[in-house]
Amino acid sequence: MLSFESDYTEGAHPQILQRLQETNMVQTPGYGTDEFCASAAEKIRSACGCPDAYVFFLTGGTQTNQIVIDSLLKPYEGVVSAETGHINAHEAGAVEFTGHKVLALPHHCGKMDPKELDEYLNRFFSDGNHEHMVFPGMVYITHPTEYGTIYTRDELAAISKVCRNYHLPLYLDGARMGYALAAENTDVTLKDIAELCDAFYIGGTKVGALFGEAVVFSGEYRPDHFVTRVKQHGGLLAKGRVLGVQFDTLFTDDLYMKISAHAIRMAGLLKQALKEKGYRFFLESPTNQQFVILENSFMEELQKHVRFSFWEKYDENHTVVRFATSWATTEENLSRLTDLL
Amino acid sequence: MLSFESDYTEGAHPQILQRLQETNMVQTPGYGTDEFCASAAEKIRSACGCPDAYVFFLTGGTQTNQIVIDSLLKPYEGVVSAETGHINAHEAGAVEFTGHKVLALPHHCGKMDPKELDEYLNRFFSDGNHEHMVFPGMVYITHPTEYGTIYTRDELAAISKVCRNYHLPLYLDGARMGYALAAENTDVTLKDIAELCDAFYIGGTKVGALFGEAVVFSGEYRPDHFVTRVKQHGGLLAKGRVLGVQFDTLFTDDLYMKISAHAIRMAGLLKQALKEKGYRFFLESPTNQQFVILENSFMEELQKHVRFSFWEKYDENHTVVRFATSWATTEENLSRLTDLL
Amino acid sequence: MLSFESDYTEGAHPQILQRLQETNMVQTPGYGTDEFCASAAEKIRSACGCPDAYVFFLTGGTQTNQIVIDSLLKPYEGVVSAETGHINAHEAGAVEFTGHKVLALPHHCGKMDPKELDEYLNRFFSDGNHEHMVFPGMVYITHPTEYGTIYTRDELAAISKVCRNYHLPLYLDGARMGYALAAENTDVTLKDIAELCDAFYIGGTKVGALFGEAVVFSGEYRPDHFVTRVKQHGGLLAKGRVLGVQFDTLFTDDLYMKISAHAIRMAGLLKQALKEKGYRFFLESPTNQQFVILENSFMEELQKHVRFSFWEKYDENHTVVRFATSWATTEENLSRLTDLL
Amino acid sequence: MLSFESDYTEGAHPQILQRLQETNMVQTPGYGTDEFCASAAEKIRSACGCPDAYVFFLTGGTQTNQIVIDSLLKPYEGVVSAETGHINAHEAGAVEFTGHKVLALPHHCGKMDPKELDEYLNRFFSDGNHEHMVFPGMVYITHPTEYGTIYTRDELAAISKVCRNYHLPLYLDGARMGYALAAENTDVTLKDIAELCDAFYIGGTKVGALFGEAVVFSGEYRPDHFVTRVKQHGGLLAKGRVLGVQFDTLFTDDLYMKISAHAIRMAGLLKQALKEKGYRFFLESPTNQQFVILENSFMEELQKHVRFSFWEKYDENHTVVRFATSWATTEENLSRLTDLL
Repeated sequence: MLSFESDYTEGAHPQILQRLQETNMVQTPGYGTDEFCASAAEKIRSACGCPDAYVFFLTGGTQTNQIVIDSLLKPYEGVVSAETGHINAHEAGAVEFTGHKVLALPHHCGKMDPKELDEYLNRFFSDGNHEHMVFPGMVYITHPTEYGTIYTRDELAAISKVCRNYHLPLYLDGARMGYALAAENTDVTLKDIAELCDAFYIGGTKVGALFGEAVVFSGEYRPDHFVTRVKQHGGLLAKGRVLGVQFDTLFTDDLYMKISAHAIRMAGLLKQALKEKGYRFFLESPTNQQFVILENSFMEELQKHVRFSFWEKYDENHTVVRFATSWATTEENLSRLTDLL
Repeated sequence: MLSFESDYTEGAHPQILQRLQETNMVQTPGYGTDEFCASAAEKIRSACGCPDAYVFFLTGGTQTNQIVIDSLLKPYEGVVSAETGHINAHEAGAVEFTGHKVLALPHHCGKMDPKELDEYLNRFFSDGNHEHMVFPGMVYITHPTEYGTIYTRDELAAISKVCRNYHLPLYLDGARMGYALAAENTDVTLKDIAELCDAFYIGGTKVGALFGEAVVFSGEYRPDHFVTRVKQHGGLLAKGRVLGVQFDTLFTDDLYMKISAHAIRMAGLLKQALKEKGYRFFLESPTNQQFVILENSFMEELQKHVRFSFWEKYDENHTVVRFATSWATTEENLSRLTDLL
Repeated sequence: MLSFESDYTEGAHPQILQRLQETNMVQTPGYGTDEFCASAAEKIRSACGCPDAYVFFLTGGTQTNQIVIDSLLKPYEGVVSAETGHINAHEAGAVEFTGHKVLALPHHCGKMDPKELDEYLNRFFSDGNHEHMVFPGMVYITHPTEYGTIYTRDELAAISKVCRNYHLPLYLDGARMGYALAAENTDVTLKDIAELCDAFYIGGTKVGALFGEAVVFSGEYRPDHFVTRVKQHGGLLAKGRVLGVQFDTLFTDDLYMKISAHAIRMAGLLKQALKEKGYRFFLESPTNQQFVILENSFMEELQKHVRFSFWEKYDENHTVVRFATSWATTEENLSRLTDLL
Repeated sequence: MLSFESDYTEGAHPQILQRLQETNMVQTPGYGTDEFCASAAEKIRSACGCPDAYVFFLTGGTQTNQIVIDSLLKPYEGVVSAETGHINAHEAGAVEFTGHKVLALPHHCGKMDPKELDEYLNRFFSDGNHEHMVFPGMVYITHPTEYGTIYTRDELAAISKVCRNYHLPLYLDGARMGYALAAENTDVTLKDIAELCDAFYIGGTKVGALFGEAVVFSGEYRPDHFVTRVKQHGGLLAKGRVLGVQFDTLFTDDLYMKISAHAIRMAGLLKQALKEKGYRFFLESPTNQQFVILENSFMEELQKHVRFSFWEKYDENHTVVRFATSWATTEENLSRLTDLL
């Protein structure tokens, strides 16, 4: 059955598999100390415009969020997030598992508002009673957000400024970062992210890799003994090379951006087709996830032919569903989908 | 440079890469709910002789130990382990990170003694003061051990009996399980392990996979909502298929045992060569890891030509080093090594 | 300086001190196994109408909340609370410290709405994706709430019914329970609480004791090895007798209710005086805490003569402040306060 | 029945109760910000010869160890302790509960050997593989030890020197510190402890208080936001004054030392009587705990008339038991005991 359920329904981009094959018999030391990780890290530092960034490779998004957040926070601090942030809603309490509270702010189509952040922090630190409260210790945002929306450079700069005023690191969850960087009309580059944030990760799992995320500490906050922390959280891969080879490939000849641009183009075609057929969108998403409001009985009929994600109930008779594109989406499959719609 | 540093210096067994390639464009749902995981689990249940075992795939050994132990223990319980157990010494406190104490017993060439275990448990539970102590809640053993040694069926049965007397689950860390099953003169089969233990994992990372471990709950202890717990610990792989495909391949046509047998044969040749050349062994290992005592200046010379693992200081002038073989070890490389020795 | 800052500004009710004196030289075993704890527990069971309740004494409210919640939840579960719940706002993340998320619902003058609770639980358990989310594992309410308001018997019964429908324990934080039980027009008795909740604590610290809270497990949920869990959380008092003597005194000749009734009478006089002088109340509180809106410059003047609690900013020119009464509040001090107002 | 079971079988020294009575109606702010805590802290600083030490009052020993250790360690560090250390054996895993491993060294009559400590630390930090291990982050000792033995000044200085060489804080658990300071022939003063250690606590619970321990950070290591950490661990007492009044009393007119000296004198008389009657001691203890080897049938007979502590099995026919003296031990009760022996 056809699937537009997510951007991780297939294996990996063919060039990644090919490179794994080519390098298979090279003998390397373990735990990320190999030549492929070194090369990938160097290419990422270069793409970020951060020659002295610390880059490390982890296997999945929740793991990455858990380890980075736990490593950047002091034990009595929590992480500020929009209430819709992935860490607050869909990671089974992985942050709380490490002892930290997620301090939720309202969201606006998945985004955090810099002014609301500033007001919250100002209220907290000016209140004499805050010794009995969880200290905000860092700020977490996603780009694109869980709703497929993206920040503008100005918005990102405004959040960054608030964080720096309060001496809090800003961490960006880039599980789908490629799709934000390749979105039409975005003015945010990878270098902007590296400059405005203190830590972020470049998602591989959802952008063409078998698995893997590249964590980048681009600012002044660098957890000491990060490898030991990763090990302690159960996240250290013995054959770290498998991550190195994948990210080295993704950051060679712009593959990461090419994959992302393809998915965005496919999403654009889908969006156009949906509009032409008069479908209602739940919100305007410039990235690879499209949220559409379907009448329930039609949705049930459609599910017999194509897989997509249930997002949320819209009203008694309607449901919000999500269609996602990726490197693997073909025009042919798109046609089959639009025929069904 | 030639390397006998570990059994995870290369990528994956070629059949695994090939199968990843062949299945790459199949669309699957995520998080281990795909057809490849289902097929692999079924083959593992069959190999274990446990038609109703619960099988789940994780990415690494420390992660697996952390999650299984934390899921089987009650919050006020600890895990009993030989003091040399991997969880007690080389996992950066990943068990304590989840709030549990490792209760260490003496080791005998890496193995736990069933009688000492019995005495410890008897002493604990007969002592009226134990409400102020950490309750032993499960028993952890490794097979092969960190020293490459293996349990006999009788020894394993004796430990199992003690555990069942005290109603404690027995968990076996099988990071290198294949090498124990393929060891010369072993009388322990995978079915024995499934019968005598309550939980164990079949190591993939060190036995030919790119990465991955297959957790098997073969006994009466089944953590509820295991997927949620895995997510909470940051261990849930989005493209679970990557694990499914690998273990499906390893458990097709006995590949897992063939890989292991090859490594054991290579270790046997190495052992023979070492013996012929008069090297001293630190202990007798029937598996793929060989521990040899080298004179320090010779060791330093040798390091210029071949990579191996430093194990521990033996005395002022000697060091214990480890040579490991794997699916990837060739007779040619073995010859090069023995020429150097 | 006169203080209406809280209900714990003095030491202990004189009868408690006297009883500590009288029993001082009695030799007892430690950790709550003494005769005073046994007697106090029996009196509490009797007052609750629960002959088989499990009663244990702890030293403070945050500690009690942390230990009870961590003991009742499974590791992958969180606790549902109104967003204003003490555990969510003013306990420095003590619940998250033990690995659990606080799942916040809206509040209504500090109270949780049974219908909103039902909707939340229904949405959670009917959503197929909940394996990636924190499971609601219990419900936490406060009575009186952080705003001094109280539940009616019907409201409490409605919340209890929802909890039982979903097989979730209901836990009531009774840091100031006496003041709710003694409130004018309340129809909720201690026996009602014991019947409708599964666990609760009867606050001592804020109702006349030097310190101490009596935890009561009145329902079917009984954490095993509770003493070990208390020890593990650092909450086990060596001289448990000190808690036993205090609660034995509080539950002899109705002292707990007499103390509470006195505070309520004093709060009533204060309320009347405030009303007569035309003060605005932030909300209607029937208990010992009164929340008043003061003009800022007047508030600053008043602070020179009497201590009270800053509650929150009301608007640019006004602040909400709290006055609290207790067993130790005298009519004389009340007069001095009303003269100042 | 007569009891020599522990040094916390009675309430509090009469002067403490009297002072609680006298100060009962003074109104104070909460959480340790009151005048009594301030006065007690000042007296302790003075007694320690540390005018700038940070002093805070907690309610019990396990709580204090948990909070201090968790506050001084980085998340990837563990605490080094003799295997018999209270935190390693009798605190229900309270340290592991906060995520940290106890790194156990051998004990010598309860004491840690500075040379063994040095060797362990040297081995750890010189081993290139230590990134996969728990980092030793501080050293924990008890004085007197769990066996009633005490360090000499030289021994303490040697341990302190090792710690400072490796830049690790030294923390001394002084649950029974008074009995070490008052021991015959000791050359260790409170000022020595403050100088040689970085943190320690002066035990109140076992030295005449109702409950309470005074934590002193005398060195360069000062956890930031300690009050918030205490709250987060559930250890913050609302009526902190109760701790302040007690320690203010204990450190007025040398009461703490007088109490301790009395207990030591009583222990001396008991020791003499035991020796005269030919009893065998398990080890030589210069403090208030005496460990005696009793023949089992005699022990059972004795238990009918007097309470003492079971310590451990000595051999098939003998048991080690403990008798403890305190401020409350009278010569009359001692006579009754010696008559029974």
